[in-house]
Amino acid sequence: MAAAAPPPPPAPAPSAPTGIPDSDNTPVGYPIFSRIRLATPADVPHIHKLIHQMAVFERLTDLFSATEASLSDTLFNFPPFQSFTVFLLEVSSSPIPQILSSDFAPIERILHYDHPLVDPEAETFRSGGADVSVAGFVLFFPNYSTFLGKPGFYVEDLFVRECYRRKGFGRMLLTAVAVQAVKMGYGRVEWVVLDWNVNAIKFYEEMGAKVLPEWRICRLTGPDLEAYRNVDAI
Amino acid sequence: MAAAAPPPPPAPAPSAPTGIPDSDNTPVGYPIFSRIRLATPADVPHIHKLIHQMAVFERLTDLFSATEASLSDTLFNFPPFQSFTVFLLEVSSSPIPQILSSDFAPIERILHYDHPLVDPEAETFRSGGADVSVAGFVLFFPNYSTFLGKPGFYVEDLFVRECYRRKGFGRMLLTAVAVQAVKMGYGRVEWVVLDWNVNAIKFYEEMGAKVLPEWRICRLTGPDLEAYRNVDAI
Repeated sequence: MAAAAPPPPPAPAPSAPTGIPDSDNTPVGYPIFSRIRLATPADVPHIHKLIHQMAVFERLTDLFSATEASLSDTLFNFPPFQSFTVFLLEVSSSPIPQILSSDFAPIERILHYDHPLVDPEAETFRSGGADVSVAGFVLFFPNYSTFLGKPGFYVEDLFVRECYRRKGFGRMLLTAVAVQAVKMGYGRVEWVVLDWNVNAIKFYEEMGAKVLPEWRICRLTGPDLEAYRNVDAI
Repeated sequence: MAAAAPPPPPAPAPSAPTGIPDSDNTPVGYPIFSRIRLATPADVPHIHKLIHQMAVFERLTDLFSATEASLSDTLFNFPPFQSFTVFLLEVSSSPIPQILSSDFAPIERILHYDHPLVDPEAETFRSGGADVSVAGFVLFFPNYSTFLGKPGFYVEDLFVRECYRRKGFGRMLLTAVAVQAVKMGYGRVEWVVLDWNVNAIKFYEEMGAKVLPEWRICRLTGPDLEAYRNVDAI
């Protein structure tokens, strides 16, 4: 997967529709307690399932060969933000037990809805606390701009499970990456989008991104890459 | 700079036109001794000049803000291949003094030409030995495919100085990255190209790359990124 999955289209800002400010944590109607935290090796089974759902959503399961083992072997080998990094989105109908993290302070938001949110896969994506489920993720890593002479972040994947779409969670995950980039003094955040996905493009443009019309991705993979096994190819 | 600079178009294979095999190191006609090695912090002044030349070549000097200091601060902070990595191309009319590197064995090739190669900037790009000049570079770093569940390399920039173009050096640099990717068990090598640069596209396709027609790059940078300075944006 080379790209951010199409995100949910623009959604209402995640604030209480009653006008009660977020800082007042009194649930109104049906609350969803949400949290973005750094993923850990223990989250690999959930991450693997989310990636598979993304492949199904994009009808690209023929390209899907990741296993829990391959993810475990290749993610989490370096400190967060210095290499491949995963933010996990967790949701619950009750307050999520706090965790401490020296690398990244979890971002917590409470959203309020008129109707209860039904998650048919809540058990499959159970995470930690009794009522906490993993709802989505974003995987990103440093890239580099030689013109700016400094790093940025490239967002490889952004995915929110179906029953949590159109609620602002995609925006929340992507914003978390942008906030982290600014915090680290990075020069830009980049990702890719399919040119026909007008909803996604509109959503990204509203977030401040520019779509570069002229650049195309070149990919060397599979047997074409394997042909370079021998240095004598040079 | 988000992308690989347009490389030289396909060039003759770097072998002796007389048919003398490369393994016979006897210079024929006018030889160019070339070497690809890992760049070090001492190479930053040359890398900075090469990036500036690339900005001039692409008529994008208004986007160029890298300084030697910003490059020094952000490159070379991690072991090669784990983060931002630069391969430098050096050339000489006489054998290049050997160096030892535990991270990457330098790749050496001898090319033979009917005419001497005139490099008007040889002094500016002098590197190490009396007759060695830096002729180009490639900057790349790990990316990640969630579908494959493993890393790859992204080539941010590929640049060869004007008087060394159309001689196979661009191919040599890009091939060095592909060989390294295979050696590390990585799943793919990616870069970008301008859709109107038919020569570059032809060159890349001949190297085995596929151009992905539908994906577009989204970029969040400058004041649009700066707007995310505050975590309350989430």
